[in-house]
Amino acid sequence: MLFPCYQAECRECKFCKSGKTNLCGKVRAATGVGVMMNDRKSRFSINGKPIYHFMGTSTFSQYTVVHDVSVAKIDPKAPLEKVCLLGCGVPTGLGAVWNTAKVEAGSIVAIFGLGTVGLAVAEGAKAASASRIIGIDIDSNKFDRAKGFGVTEFVNPKDHDKPIQQVLVDLTDGGVDYSFECIGNVSVMRAALECCHKGWGTSVIVGVAASGQEISTRPFQLVTGRVWKGTAFGGFKSRSQVPMLVDKYMKKEIKVDEYITHNLTLPEMNKAFDLLHEGSCLRCVLDMQV
Amino acid sequence: MLFPCYQAECRECKFCKSGKTNLCGKVRAATGVGVMMNDRKSRFSINGKPIYHFMGTSTFSQYTVVHDVSVAKIDPKAPLEKVCLLGCGVPTGLGAVWNTAKVEAGSIVAIFGLGTVGLAVAEGAKAASASRIIGIDIDSNKFDRAKGFGVTEFVNPKDHDKPIQQVLVDLTDGGVDYSFECIGNVSVMRAALECCHKGWGTSVIVGVAASGQEISTRPFQLVTGRVWKGTAFGGFKSRSQVPMLVDKYMKKEIKVDEYITHNLTLPEMNKAFDLLHEGSCLRCVLDMQV
Ligand SMILES: NC(=O)c1ccc[n+]([C@@H]2O[C@H](COP(=O)([O-])OP(=O)(O)OC[C@H]3O[C@@H](n4cnc5c(N)ncnc54)[C@H](O)[C@@H]3O)[C@@H](O)[C@H]2O)c1
Ligand SMILES: NC(=O)c1ccc[n+]([C@@H]2O[C@H](COP(=O)([O-])OP(=O)(O)OC[C@H]3O[C@@H](n4cnc5c(N)ncnc54)[C@H](O)[C@@H]3O)[C@@H](O)[C@H]2O)c1
Ligand SMILES: [Zn+2]
Ligand SMILES: [Zn+2]
Repeated sequence: MLFPCYQAECRECKFCKSGKTNLCGKVRAATGVGVMMNDRKSRFSINGKPIYHFMGTSTFSQYTVVHDVSVAKIDPKAPLEKVCLLGCGVPTGLGAVWNTAKVEAGSIVAIFGLGTVGLAVAEGAKAASASRIIGIDIDSNKFDRAKGFGVTEFVNPKDHDKPIQQVLVDLTDGGVDYSFECIGNVSVMRAALECCHKGWGTSVIVGVAASGQEISTRPFQLVTGRVWKGTAFGGFKSRSQVPMLVDKYMKKEIKVDEYITHNLTLPEMNKAFDLLHEGSCLRCVLDMQV
Repeated sequence: MLFPCYQAECRECKFCKSGKTNLCGKVRAATGVGVMMNDRKSRFSINGKPIYHFMGTSTFSQYTVVHDVSVAKIDPKAPLEKVCLLGCGVPTGLGAVWNTAKVEAGSIVAIFGLGTVGLAVAEGAKAASASRIIGIDIDSNKFDRAKGFGVTEFVNPKDHDKPIQQVLVDLTDGGVDYSFECIGNVSVMRAALECCHKGWGTSVIVGVAASGQEISTRPFQLVTGRVWKGTAFGGFKSRSQVPMLVDKYMKKEIKVDEYITHNLTLPEMNKAFDLLHEGSCLRCVLDMQV
């Protein structure tokens, strides 16, 4: 069964061959103009006008055309209406922990933002035997569900007068071993770095900020041993590793169903966006067959 | 023979026991007020007024008092007027490459600032078999000497209209594998990060910026795989590893003499500072026996 991936894997470019990154240089899905490579044209049109691909896959559609290097071959028995979540948010969170941060057993972990990505970080951290998994969210309703994904403690920045980085440093006798920003807010990215322990604390930026926004900190934060990193699709290689993640789901080694809070149909798409903004929805799966 | 170290190593604190950092939490030399720990008093005075320790060692003096955990035991045959350089700048540069960045053979390295620290980075990168070692300095006089330390190419930002990060990306088909900021300039720290290759480039901040100054960048730089780190004393543990560095010098495996461009006496101290500012001087050793 074929599975479209927004992150391509050509296995031929400098990036694919480096052994150091999952970012393929051949198809630039996120930043490209959404055309096929061989003729630089789109495969979609409406009333004769071209419509460009979105994120290299354009899957809000019954049919699509993708590059061969952007398609993984997965277990044909896997339910597509579930494993479609393995195309972005869930692997991003798991891989941020396993591939990018490489969290060790016993570590103290802080997760900023408890949406799907943050919860997948919690699941990954629990699997890595973290000793404390501290979830931070401005919406206290998020905590109950987060417990099921491994979060052991909850902090709402609104309950504190002190900056959230100071709250966490106090709570952990000097700072956390690993932190993950899963929101896309540049001030929170700074807090996520600064709540890390001097000497070794590592902060991973997962959230995508609005374009043009910048992160800042005092360089002394890094000179005294903190590390600032980021992750794209959790460092997983799409064609090579999505099939493995699908297998893990089929063996019940990783969650997927638990992230799906709503099911709607393609014409209800805008309602799905409203649900996402409103907060109670983690992921909404759309039925395309209408 | 005893060797005073500004970075202590108590072997008992959380930091020393972590196995992840050389920063000891017991004696805070750089930020403390310069007193002995047991009675919180200074050991120096002039006309009855206390003078506080500087950097935990206060070695601009014929005699000093240091904490027991701030003293390394080195080969008694080592010439102190040379190996004193192993107390800061030279290990910082070598360790930034060997311990913090862990540069692999074949890597492309960029070094911003070709003072003692930058030259020691070059020496470390050469020992690690880097394929290209690009030195960047606004003083073109630095290049001749830098060749002797392993720098293979030289770029003066003043010779270019484009931002220096773009110059380096163009020169290296996408960016360097490792970069080191050895100046203490926050704009250069940003350039050093942004000249790194997408997917894996790692930038190490070695320079110490003026207090209050901040570094910034777009978070996308990190999300697309660059890593921002820093180093203090190159990650070397002082009491455990300075003796090993002294031994390496005695076996001619690392340079020390080559960094000493001037020798003066204690009363000429201010002249030494002038020489450092003026640019031709790398390190000036002061004879304290006057
Ligand atoms: N790097 C990647 O490859 C990658 C992949 C997928 C998603 N993402 C990004 O990850 C981020 C999270 O995605 P998601 O689907 O989980 O989003 P989401 O909107 O479901 O979750 C965000 C959570 O953050 C909370 N939040 C908002 N502001 C906050 C603040 N100031 N402090 C604390 N909590 C706050 C919200 O209440 C919410 O629970 C997004 O920016 C998304 O673009 C990145
Ligand atoms: N992190 C640590 O543990 C540690 C240890 C020792 C020294 N340091 C710091 O390392 C830095 C370097 O020390 P040093 O003794 O080699 O200094 P230095 O002054 O001898 O060398 C700095 C070099 O940078 C060059 N330079 C200045 N501005 C520049 C610019 N905009 N672009 C390019 N080059 C520029 C100068 O011409 C000079 O050659 C200092 O900030 C020092 O405080 C840090
Ligand atoms: Zn590729
Ligand atoms: Zn210690």
